[in-house]
Amino acid sequence: MVREGRTFRWSGRYDYDLNMVETLETQLNTFADFRPVLPDGYAESKFVFLANGDPDIQLEVLQQVPKARLRVMDTMDYWIQNKPESLVRTIGQVDILLMNEAEARMLAETPSLLAAARRILRLGPKGVIIKKGEYGAVMFTDFDYFAVPAYPLDEVRDPTGAGDSFAGGFLGYLARANRVNLDTMRRAVVMGTVVASFTVEDFSLSRLEKVTPEEIRLRTEELREFTRFVVD
Amino acid sequence: MVREGRTFRWSGRYDYDLNMVETLETQLNTFADFRPVLPDGYAESKFVFLANGDPDIQLEVLQQVPKARLRVMDTMDYWIQNKPESLVRTIGQVDILLMNEAEARMLAETPSLLAAARRILRLGPKGVIIKKGEYGAVMFTDFDYFAVPAYPLDEVRDPTGAGDSFAGGFLGYLARANRVNLDTMRRAVVMGTVVASFTVEDFSLSRLEKVTPEEIRLRTEELREFTRFVVD
Repeated sequence: MVREGRTFRWSGRYDYDLNMVETLETQLNTFADFRPVLPDGYAESKFVFLANGDPDIQLEVLQQVPKARLRVMDTMDYWIQNKPESLVRTIGQVDILLMNEAEARMLAETPSLLAAARRILRLGPKGVIIKKGEYGAVMFTDFDYFAVPAYPLDEVRDPTGAGDSFAGGFLGYLARANRVNLDTMRRAVVMGTVVASFTVEDFSLSRLEKVTPEEIRLRTEELREFTRFVVD
Repeated sequence: MVREGRTFRWSGRYDYDLNMVETLETQLNTFADFRPVLPDGYAESKFVFLANGDPDIQLEVLQQVPKARLRVMDTMDYWIQNKPESLVRTIGQVDILLMNEAEARMLAETPSLLAAARRILRLGPKGVIIKKGEYGAVMFTDFDYFAVPAYPLDEVRDPTGAGDSFAGGFLGYLARANRVNLDTMRRAVVMGTVVASFTVEDFSLSRLEKVTPEEIRLRTEELREFTRFVVD
């Protein structure tokens, strides 16, 4: 499949079970000379998400939001391979790094996700959230580990956008809660998981356009019920 | 790697992250003409585990334990491919089918695990537990879905035996609790997960020989803590 955007042209291949993705080619399109200057009001932003992009540009954007309370960034294999030093520098300036499993292993150069997370935390961020597709998501901080399964779906029609909508749900929850602590972060990871579960049910934004707050609340409660167990 | 046992000679290959395993060859050794006759006392067994093996022989064993309250069976790709009709017949006679993810997809012929579980439940068992290696385990019944992550480990030294020790923890918990309901089944899945987490930390039985009840209790409580979140 191919994703053609303003900034990227990405082509890749999903596995049979849609969990693993292999990048075949990334072309930078207009990204190659993209120099974002944020409008004045944006400088006051408290919750900032740096979507996947050139880590040097992510850093430039970050310098334009000096009042940010929570800075979250995404990245991808292309930057790990082509701009590792810039990437590590930018990772050192954010609070949370969001990435998928294969990228975490690639960045940290270890098959153990726990070891990978520890190495990534040493680069500076307070937390790393690793998205695992159908297997849910985990969040590592220096003092906490959290795992949530994906919401079980009959059919995943299109995983495109799952990562970005996860980020949207995560940041959106925290911005509205306006409190950043381990409990709200865990809850935000669950929100990201639930929002992404709607995204992948249909192509493009079709499902997200129709989703209601009630549907989101229901899946959140179901996820809690699906993971509950009693220790005697 | 090769596992040489009395009944099997299996050779296969684990992925980089040790989650997926590919069978290269299975030879049946003495299994080919193995006809187990259970000693008298065994006929009274209440909790029965049919480890992976020829489904016709599993059925013969099952007929020797008529008082079983919970009958659990494991299987593998070899039987799905070579004895599908016998396998389906035996599955129809047990309460719980335990298998790994790739086997569930293979048996049900669908990439969706949820769809696979539904199809397997229609074969007769009351529940299907799907083991996912590093991604934990899930249990489907007609009225319940439960997901538990694996206990996060720095290093997985040898995944051999993880499935059988999962089964041991699962059955052992239920046999001791002597109550089979959704709560004890969930708790038993957690016990299986925890026991397997010790198994894979070292080769053969080295780690299991040393594990203490206190260590098991601690990891169980950690798993509960790792999955806890508050819904507002």
